[in-house]
Amino acid sequence: MIQCSDDVFENVMDLARRRGFIWPTSECYGAVAGFIDYGPLGAMMKRRVENIWRDFYIVREGYYEIECPTIAQEAVFIASGHVKGFSDKMCQCPHCREYLRADHVAEAGNITNASVMKNEDLAAAITSCRCPACDTILGNVEVFNFNLMFSTTIGPGSQRTGYLRPETAQGMFVDFSRLLRFYRDKLPFGAVQIGKSYRNEISPRQGMIRLREFTQAEAEIFVHPNEKNHHPSFQRYTDYRMPLLTFTRQLKCEDPVEMSMREAVDKGIIANEYVAYYVALTHERLRFRQHLPDERAHYATDCWDAEVFSPRFGWVETVGIADRTDYDLNAHAAQSGTPMTVFIQYDEPKKTSRRRIIPNMSVLGKQYRTKAKAVFAALEAALPTPEGADIEIGDEKIHIPAHLFEVRDEVIDIRGEYIVPHVIEPSYGIDRMCYAVLEQAFDEDIADGEKRTVMRLSPKVAPVQVAVFPLMARDGLDTIADDITRTFHKKSILAEYDDNGAIGRRYRRQDEIGTPFAITVDYTTKENNTVTLRDRDSMEQVRIPIPELTETVGALVEGRITFTSLHRDKTV
Amino acid sequence: MIQCSDDVFENVMDLARRRGFIWPTSECYGAVAGFIDYGPLGAMMKRRVENIWRDFYIVREGYYEIECPTIAQEAVFIASGHVKGFSDKMCQCPHCREYLRADHVAEAGNITNASVMKNEDLAAAITSCRCPACDTILGNVEVFNFNLMFSTTIGPGSQRTGYLRPETAQGMFVDFSRLLRFYRDKLPFGAVQIGKSYRNEISPRQGMIRLREFTQAEAEIFVHPNEKNHHPSFQRYTDYRMPLLTFTRQLKCEDPVEMSMREAVDKGIIANEYVAYYVALTHERLRFRQHLPDERAHYATDCWDAEVFSPRFGWVETVGIADRTDYDLNAHAAQSGTPMTVFIQYDEPKKTSRRRIIPNMSVLGKQYRTKAKAVFAALEAALPTPEGADIEIGDEKIHIPAHLFEVRDEVIDIRGEYIVPHVIEPSYGIDRMCYAVLEQAFDEDIADGEKRTVMRLSPKVAPVQVAVFPLMARDGLDTIADDITRTFHKKSILAEYDDNGAIGRRYRRQDEIGTPFAITVDYTTKENNTVTLRDRDSMEQVRIPIPELTETVGALVEGRITFTSLHRDKTV
Repeated sequence: MIQCSDDVFENVMDLARRRGFIWPTSECYGAVAGFIDYGPLGAMMKRRVENIWRDFYIVREGYYEIECPTIAQEAVFIASGHVKGFSDKMCQCPHCREYLRADHVAEAGNITNASVMKNEDLAAAITSCRCPACDTILGNVEVFNFNLMFSTTIGPGSQRTGYLRPETAQGMFVDFSRLLRFYRDKLPFGAVQIGKSYRNEISPRQGMIRLREFTQAEAEIFVHPNEKNHHPSFQRYTDYRMPLLTFTRQLKCEDPVEMSMREAVDKGIIANEYVAYYVALTHERLRFRQHLPDERAHYATDCWDAEVFSPRFGWVETVGIADRTDYDLNAHAAQSGTPMTVFIQYDEPKKTSRRRIIPNMSVLGKQYRTKAKAVFAALEAALPTPEGADIEIGDEKIHIPAHLFEVRDEVIDIRGEYIVPHVIEPSYGIDRMCYAVLEQAFDEDIADGEKRTVMRLSPKVAPVQVAVFPLMARDGLDTIADDITRTFHKKSILAEYDDNGAIGRRYRRQDEIGTPFAITVDYTTKENNTVTLRDRDSMEQVRIPIPELTETVGALVEGRITFTSLHRDKTV
Repeated sequence: MIQCSDDVFENVMDLARRRGFIWPTSECYGAVAGFIDYGPLGAMMKRRVENIWRDFYIVREGYYEIECPTIAQEAVFIASGHVKGFSDKMCQCPHCREYLRADHVAEAGNITNASVMKNEDLAAAITSCRCPACDTILGNVEVFNFNLMFSTTIGPGSQRTGYLRPETAQGMFVDFSRLLRFYRDKLPFGAVQIGKSYRNEISPRQGMIRLREFTQAEAEIFVHPNEKNHHPSFQRYTDYRMPLLTFTRQLKCEDPVEMSMREAVDKGIIANEYVAYYVALTHERLRFRQHLPDERAHYATDCWDAEVFSPRFGWVETVGIADRTDYDLNAHAAQSGTPMTVFIQYDEPKKTSRRRIIPNMSVLGKQYRTKAKAVFAALEAALPTPEGADIEIGDEKIHIPAHLFEVRDEVIDIRGEYIVPHVIEPSYGIDRMCYAVLEQAFDEDIADGEKRTVMRLSPKVAPVQVAVFPLMARDGLDTIADDITRTFHKKSILAEYDDNGAIGRRYRRQDEIGTPFAITVDYTTKENNTVTLRDRDSMEQVRIPIPELTETVGALVEGRITFTSLHRDKTV
């Protein structure tokens, strides 16, 4: 393998543009920073990544997906805190008029704690910093908060402000009551959402890493606050060991430490079993990208973030696993006036004693007549002493002597209580994962004495799953290859027929887009009804009878069998 | 079957809300008209509908999907005509301040041709109409155009106007040059997109039929304008017969006429083979909803629209098949200055003759010296006469006598020409299809002497594919049922375990959400390792050995076998 150089970003993006993975958006009008198009191969790969996530969170973990609009009314984001707090500190260069992140300018000028400074202090601190765009010393600038939500108006006459959601999560919170009923009022339950989110970044310059419109896959898992240490499937990961870059180790500039999930929870390094479960699950699932040199295929997971190393961008947060506690549900309950609680029935009703006052109705009725009803009510709520009870009716204070009522101490059952669930949130950045997949799959090696560019994509995410070539586009070879292609399509396997150019060139084209397998129909096919099946990575070939093709390729794509196992049987 | 009544809409939406198909969005803040949430079952169903579409257009038809941002810059929609022309005529009621569609007010007041009136004329025409909101006579109102695009600002400082796309189609047009290269410069080719589109409707009041945020599945197929009558697979539908409500029959209030696609194209009723191919394909694929009374399961397809009948909304356009010609590509080419053409190589180069002038360089060189180069160039472009040629160098006019150059008539080959492709667009409204699926699946019948509500969803779109019940949640029956559920999950079949309540009640719950099959683990299971498999529609049961379950249910869900075929073998 030729060692990937630092310009892997340029190589990957060049290939991605050229072959139809990623395109600049509306390029003919001048691309807009922070937006990208997924081309034919990129969209297919993205869809496969999303479906792996779905299969895992929906089918296996049992959390249903919901789909909320991307536009939501202002009240939602007032409650969530985004209207007030979701902003970056911005200034404008007085010389070149470029808009700048004031905290980034400060950091570049070695000013510490920029992120916690007040706007006026930050403005004062950066007067001697240089504008990153025109390299002039800034001088006096104003620093102000720029809200990162895209806003719009719903309906005519500017009736209603709407925002494009900055995260999919709020949809699950706002739908809490409906979800609770769907799951028949039982905790824990969860809902997931895969969809577009939007952040109007001040000046995004990092390709697919920082986008203004991006795709999130978020799960919100609602749990009893007292049961966060009892994930029902935690035993699956009790002994699962992984490197953790803890908060304290980060402060000391130390390397990650490896430990089991049990240990991490018991030592308080990971907050609770729920967070630990999703940290381990994420780590386990990110393994499909570990075909990189050792020092890269290494995920630093602190309590919350899974990062992936990019030679261009350094460590990039790709998954965030957060314990959001009851913050969001409390905020929406307060803003909307709708209680967002779950009734938790006790295993055994709790006995408790309650003092109850039973008025002597006939005597009181005669004595207070028209006021009697109010007196009864006040008496029932009163705190009696051995001498009697003092009550108030309107402005009037009345003393009711003890013989006019009876005091009983009753034992009652409390069946349960209302609680506000806590929320555990695994949140995946799909675009960043797609970029990481492309970057880590990109490779160059030597084939037939020439440099070969090959995308070593997992067969599960490769856009085209198998290529079908007739050796020559004549003598009936093309018809056989075409029939094979159609048979794959009937089984929903994406096969691409290609009869254009020399066979070696066709292999290269497929290697470059990561097609894991290629079939060639040759003259031997007409003799014994077999074709060659070639493995992208090893470039080795075996002969397979045509009737076995869809089953074999299907099993290879789904990872049920390996190419090596075929190879042992029937090398060409 | 109990005949569905006119309030099927209320029944369907009530069930949809109650069981988690469709929810009002951000309900706790007061739902916003024109937006809906897909709940857990609705989102699953929608995903399955989308994937059927994908499998068909991408895998079978071979058109790749792309994914463009939902926000695009203004230039795109200036070119497409949406900035100028995508608007409705609006007025405001002077009494209740409600915003109204002026053309709808006119129609309700029996004023004809409202849609083609000038704004002032329309305003004058509706003065005596009543406001549909407060029922007061309008009087003098102003009618103005309201643009239906949601607008926003990209980047800080109101740098750039952006719009939420009103259709996914523009993404494919703007990416034309990239797509052309991806398909190696050959026509025809196509690209599809499934995603959100947005229209800021003035006052949407039709549930899932008219949404402000909705999902489209659009295919844009780029074809040579001269070859629209040569769809490569047209023979598949040559003899396909379907009812067509033609333009002329509509004007005469006649019923649809049935004819074959060949006939429709030959008679000029459908414009060309491409449009006819997608009309037939759409008609064929919509059949999965034809389990309705005859008079409803009937699609009126004129040259462009496939409509579905709803008892509540009447005929609703669900699919539009349009021949967009070269309108969009020409508009984007003009606006962006990027040519959007395809080079079409002729089968045989065309011979043409060209007159060429060859100067006598040595004489001219001496005569004109420093000007010689300019003279050569001008002479090559000149139109010679037998006397010579007149040329201009700057302001100077020069006559070059005939003996100073030679005139040759050459025969040259023209290899091909640049053309602007035409675009055929099948466009599907996914939300409307989902509503139609729900409405048409809704049914009531009698089971065990009681009314049963049943969603007769096709197994291919039913959210939960199989339910698994232990007869009792004890004696190990629950463990067996749980194991069966997990085995389904490993095969990506969505199974729901339920041990809550009487078995009859559990069947009813699944019937109501359209789960096509239900398995019960009973005491016989412990004796012979078989379970009962129940069919939702017939409510009949067969016993199946546990090891055969995933294969059998998988085949039933994919439609490879029918329940009746099982039933013949092994009735309980």
